[in-house]
Amino acid sequence: PDDRFRNEALERQAVLTKPPGSLGRLEEVAVELAGQQGSGRPSVDQVHIAIFAGDHGVCAEGISAFPQEVTGQMIANFAHGGAAISVMARHLDATLEVINLGTVTPVPDLQGVNQLQIAPGTANLAVEPAMTPHQVSAALQAGDDVAERAAAAGAQLFIGGDMGIGNTTTAAALACALLDASASDLAGPGTGLDAQGVSHKAEVIGRALTRHGDNRDPLAVLGSLGGLEIAALTGAILGCAARRIPVLVDGFIVSVAALVAVRQQPVARQWLHFSHRSGEPGHNRVLAAMEAQPLLDLGMRLGEGSGAAVALPLLRSACALHNDMASFAGAGVSNKEA
Amino acid sequence: PDDRFRNEALERQAVLTKPPGSLGRLEEVAVELAGQQGSGRPSVDQVHIAIFAGDHGVCAEGISAFPQEVTGQMIANFAHGGAAISVMARHLDATLEVINLGTVTPVPDLQGVNQLQIAPGTANLAVEPAMTPHQVSAALQAGDDVAERAAAAGAQLFIGGDMGIGNTTTAAALACALLDASASDLAGPGTGLDAQGVSHKAEVIGRALTRHGDNRDPLAVLGSLGGLEIAALTGAILGCAARRIPVLVDGFIVSVAALVAVRQQPVARQWLHFSHRSGEPGHNRVLAAMEAQPLLDLGMRLGEGSGAAVALPLLRSACALHNDMASFAGAGVSNKEA
Repeated sequence: PDDRFRNEALERQAVLTKPPGSLGRLEEVAVELAGQQGSGRPSVDQVHIAIFAGDHGVCAEGISAFPQEVTGQMIANFAHGGAAISVMARHLDATLEVINLGTVTPVPDLQGVNQLQIAPGTANLAVEPAMTPHQVSAALQAGDDVAERAAAAGAQLFIGGDMGIGNTTTAAALACALLDASASDLAGPGTGLDAQGVSHKAEVIGRALTRHGDNRDPLAVLGSLGGLEIAALTGAILGCAARRIPVLVDGFIVSVAALVAVRQQPVARQWLHFSHRSGEPGHNRVLAAMEAQPLLDLGMRLGEGSGAAVALPLLRSACALHNDMASFAGAGVSNKEA
Repeated sequence: PDDRFRNEALERQAVLTKPPGSLGRLEEVAVELAGQQGSGRPSVDQVHIAIFAGDHGVCAEGISAFPQEVTGQMIANFAHGGAAISVMARHLDATLEVINLGTVTPVPDLQGVNQLQIAPGTANLAVEPAMTPHQVSAALQAGDDVAERAAAAGAQLFIGGDMGIGNTTTAAALACALLDASASDLAGPGTGLDAQGVSHKAEVIGRALTRHGDNRDPLAVLGSLGGLEIAALTGAILGCAARRIPVLVDGFIVSVAALVAVRQQPVARQWLHFSHRSGEPGHNRVLAAMEAQPLLDLGMRLGEGSGAAVALPLLRSACALHNDMASFAGAGVSNKEA
């Protein structure tokens, strides 16, 4: 981010016709975007949304309330426009692309879906490394390719989303390893487990952590305990940060991908905005590790980038207010008494 | 609200392609709007925003960080499009009208401003009743007239905003009387008082409460301790509820007007959505008294309806998701395993 534009934006906020600070977090958002975009008129009109999908071998352990074929079915739902993120992308006039990193059953060709099929899902992380080094590289590259396309299209903001039955188990395992947390701290209900299901999920994650051992290298952790779509999200976040594109981070899954990215490349943190606090309980620890204060706390826990999409209008409002409000001098309004 | 449409909306939420409940508060918003609008396709595309302005005699006690002429200057800023709410109304494609209930110095004619000048501001509530019964009636009627215009224009949602230097003192006094709270519980910094200023403000409110005595009748309290713009907001909220128009309540000032309305007419509560938790500390008590859980908590404390305007896109997203998402059956997606 460019401190000159950031400081100019701070000065501008101080002279707009409102008590200083009275727009709260919206002032910070506008100031950060001005620095990130190197612009006196920050804008997030042009938004690129990418949904990364992949299957998880750990589903063999019975850790999800939904059957695994839903990953592929939802890819079709994204393409046909019926999923939450599809609706939101239209509603927000954002571009949407879907990248299938690899499903258990290959998904037929669909318009708007990039079929990579790096692997037929990951291996079961409870018993063996989820991905090979080659698979990790390919998924990271797929994310970087998306960042490159977003940059080429002139995106002013990037939103990544996830789809993968079982991926709250994967994300919790990753977060445990990176944060030195216990499985029971970070295992949650995901798409709808009951207490017994959550307890079983924690036990599965605990086995994975024991198998994995002490290696804290972010990419080693990602390969051992991650998912194809999470690795691609990490690649996309690193790729956006490298290309100076701000990222609006979604919920639990994307935040874990962001955590891997920030551990790998700390400067990436400066390009991240956090959209919402998920209903998935493990999210709090992950956010705290990045000193992130999300804008929304609405009990959402859908994934797909939906929480980020719902938060996007807050960034747009912050920009509109910053760019278009009158100053005290311009409007002939008396300022606060000294 | 119409329970049939409310229940149909609940049933629809349960079959959309997402884990049940995973859209969190957005599901509740869509369901409530469906019941309020009596529609299977709730919508808040057509929004009417009205800003009510008035001056406060209690400014004689030195309780604001800004000089009193700012009320009139900001009315001009609203009309000229430079205020936060003006920017937001354009950004949201909402209609905006401004009603000047009465300023110390009359404001010249301005396009889009309805000049009522019921009184040259209120009397000083610390030493005498703020308004006469006639003034209270006229201000309530002005609010009802706005609700009538909103209904005639086909508004699907109403947002009221406030402008009045000194009105956090007035609102805190009203809330203290209605909630049996002490002045120090509800006095806050407003537009920017320091600790000494807040302490002085609490002392002024305490004097007003002593003068006012024990009368808890909502309209009597409103006349004794209220403001012209707050009374008009109360009238607008009651008028919208009577005309079955949902209201998106802004921050501290509008919430106090809503509290007066709900104490006067408890059924009005069923038409209220709460947009944000203000940075003004007294807001918490007022919200709790109405069992209100606002959607946003961004530290905003500007007034003008700006917090409601910033929250409006959340309602619009809730409607888009409710109306346009595919069902499990329609999209061929497997539902949660029983």
